[in-house]
Amino acid sequence: MTAPLAVSIGDPAGVGAEITAKAWARREAEALPPFVAIGDARAVVRVWNGPVARITDMAEVANAFTRYLPVLTIDDAGEITPGMPDVEGARCALRALELATGLTQSGAARALVTGPVSKAQLYGIGFAYAGQTEFIAERCGIAGENAVMMLAGPSLRVVPITTHVPLASVAGLLTVELIVAKARATARGLCRNFGITAPRLAFAGLNPHAGEQGTIGREEIDLIQPAIEQLRADGYDALGPFAADTMFHERARAGYDVAMCCYHDQALVPIKTLHFDEGVNMTLGLPIVRTSPDHGTAFGIAGQDRAHPGATIAAIRMAAQAVEHRASALAS
Amino acid sequence: MTAPLAVSIGDPAGVGAEITAKAWARREAEALPPFVAIGDARAVVRVWNGPVARITDMAEVANAFTRYLPVLTIDDAGEITPGMPDVEGARCALRALELATGLTQSGAARALVTGPVSKAQLYGIGFAYAGQTEFIAERCGIAGENAVMMLAGPSLRVVPITTHVPLASVAGLLTVELIVAKARATARGLCRNFGITAPRLAFAGLNPHAGEQGTIGREEIDLIQPAIEQLRADGYDALGPFAADTMFHERARAGYDVAMCCYHDQALVPIKTLHFDEGVNMTLGLPIVRTSPDHGTAFGIAGQDRAHPGATIAAIRMAAQAVEHRASALAS
Repeated sequence: MTAPLAVSIGDPAGVGAEITAKAWARREAEALPPFVAIGDARAVVRVWNGPVARITDMAEVANAFTRYLPVLTIDDAGEITPGMPDVEGARCALRALELATGLTQSGAARALVTGPVSKAQLYGIGFAYAGQTEFIAERCGIAGENAVMMLAGPSLRVVPITTHVPLASVAGLLTVELIVAKARATARGLCRNFGITAPRLAFAGLNPHAGEQGTIGREEIDLIQPAIEQLRADGYDALGPFAADTMFHERARAGYDVAMCCYHDQALVPIKTLHFDEGVNMTLGLPIVRTSPDHGTAFGIAGQDRAHPGATIAAIRMAAQAVEHRASALAS
Repeated sequence: MTAPLAVSIGDPAGVGAEITAKAWARREAEALPPFVAIGDARAVVRVWNGPVARITDMAEVANAFTRYLPVLTIDDAGEITPGMPDVEGARCALRALELATGLTQSGAARALVTGPVSKAQLYGIGFAYAGQTEFIAERCGIAGENAVMMLAGPSLRVVPITTHVPLASVAGLLTVELIVAKARATARGLCRNFGITAPRLAFAGLNPHAGEQGTIGREEIDLIQPAIEQLRADGYDALGPFAADTMFHERARAGYDVAMCCYHDQALVPIKTLHFDEGVNMTLGLPIVRTSPDHGTAFGIAGQDRAHPGATIAAIRMAAQAVEHRASALAS
């Protein structure tokens, strides 16, 4: 009996409960593996009329899953009003995250899928991490800089080398060492979680037209090209640097397995333009498998039956596949 | 009898001749208006087996166009080898551009479509402009900063507020005045060339998540928001600033007529991701209509019958429609 996946539903006032329930409703059509929702069951019942099984033991999931959405419930989110987040909801979201992470670390769950949380609310209760990723990395004993954020959709994977920093800081934060470290972790993660043994890493230039031989910025010559050469010397299939604007159309995407981007929007604009409803955030570099739908709490549409479960379904499926790739790598 | 469009074929060693000829070959299926190719006719014959009429007078175009690709020829490009640019080719490309611009200014051509040139080759013969746009603007007596580069595809229009500058310089170049000036010129251009009388301008933030209320950069608060307020006070439909990564998917694009972007790749990544083979570069703010296929000389595939004429066809059609919008605005 394989363990179920743990899906934390995130902020109880956001769309997490609705999309988790809608994913369960499509479990047969989408061939989803058994999973358990972790959060306040009332947040689910509030926005969804389907069958729910409140469970207290992970062993109950397998039997329940075919007929009920199993919810390992944390009944203390206070009054839940969809679209109206509060600190009690944030505390509930944090407890769900802690529990789901712990269950995955222990093996009671085989992978972790995290629903959307409100950073503003979490900061309000003293949450001292940049986001869920950093929290999970610390619980796993991994330094934050070694946990790589990768966004993946059906036709594109991207890694932002720098993440939530002002655009004006990006050029100053890029170093050969950072680029090489992120690339190595990405290549290992693609091998381990996707079974891509020799991943092709395509590097985007920082400047327009990748700097045009140094006439529009020198970071390509001074930083990205040396990083690529170092990676090639170590046997990695490192390509580029390419002009960012011409590397994301359909024919170009066929030429690589992941685009290594210099900054947040260079990575997230193309993937969300192409795969807005099915983008998955996977954290590479962790001992456990962790994915997340690549969208926020969407408080503005919470409780209105308008949320799209596509990204959650994709996150569940990608997590299950990653677990299988890891297992088959160990077996071989 | 309406005047034909003037299509300069650009560098004779690039794909310009091939895509111009292929556009002509599809003139009926695409319902293209009469146009004349301007450049070295030998560059066309070298890469295309269709019928060519070498003309010397614009009055000959209308009769020739149904059966021949009319070429107003500049037979001095020297030895032409596709994929191998040289200074003689650059001189020919520049003369073709000058002639096509002059014909459009005089009214002998009703719009200008410019094929791709090699900036490196042009700089080699002393060309002192950043690109064709700046050259055309000067010929038209328009200051370069008032000529706005807009990229347009079937489902998206974008304007980069800063263009070919290093990414590290972008934040320092953005000012309220610049944003407002580009927005006004864009709104006027959309009205004049597309008949959109009250265009919706959506502004992208500079930083990840549009700065998250100042926690990831302050340009949204200090520059973009004040520019938007000033534009609104003047009656413009200015929206945002929005997180760039969530403004280019299909549902989001339906909410505006043009995305005003802070820098080159923020604008060009989404449009080329979506519309790589049909993107058009239109210069707003000129007395004449000027469009261009949104791609380069593609020397690597020149002469191999592999170039896609989609962007040239779209550029010709968009130019013709812009002329009609201008004429109907004058008539009304």
